[in-house]
Amino acid sequence: MTTQAFGGILVPALTPFDARLNPDASRLLAHCNWLLAQGADGLAVFGTTSEASSLGIEERIDLLDYLIDNGIPSQQLMPGTGTCAVVDTARLTRHAVERGCRGVLMLPPFYYKAVDDDGLFASYAEVVARVGDGRLRIYLYHIPPVAQVGLSLALVGRLLTAFPSTIAGIKDSSGDWRNTEAILREYPELATFCGSETFLLETLRHGGAGSITATANINPAQIRELYGAWQSEGAQALQDGITAVRKAYAGYAAIPALKAVVAGRLEAPDWLRVRPPLVSLSQAEQATLLGELERAGFTLDPATPLRARA
Amino acid sequence: MTTQAFGGILVPALTPFDARLNPDASRLLAHCNWLLAQGADGLAVFGTTSEASSLGIEERIDLLDYLIDNGIPSQQLMPGTGTCAVVDTARLTRHAVERGCRGVLMLPPFYYKAVDDDGLFASYAEVVARVGDGRLRIYLYHIPPVAQVGLSLALVGRLLTAFPSTIAGIKDSSGDWRNTEAILREYPELATFCGSETFLLETLRHGGAGSITATANINPAQIRELYGAWQSEGAQALQDGITAVRKAYAGYAAIPALKAVVAGRLEAPDWLRVRPPLVSLSQAEQATLLGELERAGFTLDPATPLRARA
Repeated sequence: MTTQAFGGILVPALTPFDARLNPDASRLLAHCNWLLAQGADGLAVFGTTSEASSLGIEERIDLLDYLIDNGIPSQQLMPGTGTCAVVDTARLTRHAVERGCRGVLMLPPFYYKAVDDDGLFASYAEVVARVGDGRLRIYLYHIPPVAQVGLSLALVGRLLTAFPSTIAGIKDSSGDWRNTEAILREYPELATFCGSETFLLETLRHGGAGSITATANINPAQIRELYGAWQSEGAQALQDGITAVRKAYAGYAAIPALKAVVAGRLEAPDWLRVRPPLVSLSQAEQATLLGELERAGFTLDPATPLRARA
Repeated sequence: MTTQAFGGILVPALTPFDARLNPDASRLLAHCNWLLAQGADGLAVFGTTSEASSLGIEERIDLLDYLIDNGIPSQQLMPGTGTCAVVDTARLTRHAVERGCRGVLMLPPFYYKAVDDDGLFASYAEVVARVGDGRLRIYLYHIPPVAQVGLSLALVGRLLTAFPSTIAGIKDSSGDWRNTEAILREYPELATFCGSETFLLETLRHGGAGSITATANINPAQIRELYGAWQSEGAQALQDGITAVRKAYAGYAAIPALKAVVAGRLEAPDWLRVRPPLVSLSQAEQATLLGELERAGFTLDPATPLRARA
């Protein structure tokens, strides 16, 4: 059996919390449905932007079950499953495979710093062995600015050689285009996603698969439009437009800012909440941010709020 | 009810693994019993040195139960319970309190970097609220070289003011004596532990509570001897002796090196194993390390191997 690799625009869906700081599954479901209705090709739930590392292991399992049980197609799901412990990573990964997810996005273990490639290779190998399922498709997650522990170009190659049918792709959130370019050049068989839509056009021009990007939580249709039209004459103008939106919130902590935009569009202050250690934007900061986005040309039309698919 | 704070030498006990890389509970129990028999005042199981972040949440619960059910006094236990997610931290902490542990050692959430004190304060406050048990005693865990996310002097003060009967102490593994000295000066009511025995004498001279240190896995009696004799004439010589032992393994990755010493003394190669992403010392590296320790005056007498208390 072959599994088609992911391509296009995937969204690390934001996770809403209720007044007791527990995940609000029904609002998450509505957000996921809206993202798919806007044209998102997939949902990288439980990514960095989803505050996945702030969720408990059981919460992640329960939320994934809830989404799938309520109609989110598992073939459009790429849940994040990487934790500090191979045993918990294996547990989350096995569950995702059993629920039919087309792939998983996997951080390396990130507590110990300055570990070497042999140890990181062994971590992925141990998870593959513990899951022990030929359906498993891993998308490597390289995000050194947050995890601090990154995946070298050589390590990506070793993993691909050792597990050619399992290692399906990579998300490069290094913020360093030269690294993304090197991956695209060295490993054209991988589905390579840029971690920021500011690199989308360049990524696609170099044979990449698309982008898995936080901003798609608020701007999915416009980013998806560039994905569909990257070979057109207007591609650079589309790129400039989505880049301007990202720049407009770049001065804020990204996750609280994105939630503030969702809260603004839905007129739902509940969406402002983040789990500690993150801190929510105040309503004053939210108002300033929304003003900056509007000046950048971003539509915050209250007549077309975020809504679940009918 | 008042709970007496911990004092003395506590050991972040190494976690042995079996051939399938699962925790070996019986060998952990034997190691803990040996440490107590050698004079350790307490066991900070599931610390950094214990590879706690490489253990699953369920594994940590099961191992703690095993130790207590097999006779390790819960009043000598200070399990590490800090994870990236307040919900998992609260779960581990509640379990430790319910099992009668005298305190817990709590990392801040460490996935997101550059978070501010408000977010870290809210993280600890959320755990205290979720545990909701007056018996809870928290020892803050400041280890910025590994966690990257540290606890500022101001944050320690805020937590102490907000939760005066709950925040019982701190382990300072910054490696920066000036920071430890500032904590001792500003917060004399805290039980302050240095994270390296190289600062033990200075810590005690400034009113500190003792040390929670990795090296006590191999050198507990000698470190405990300094704790008992710090006001004696020979204290500096004792400090110099234990510092020399630490320097002898400082060129190696600490956790694999300490396990290699235990493996050498017990003639039990099983003890060499670490979980990925750490990498075990080879037998050749082990032999070199043991030679360096012997030259530093460390006794590796095979006639007095590590053993369980009778």
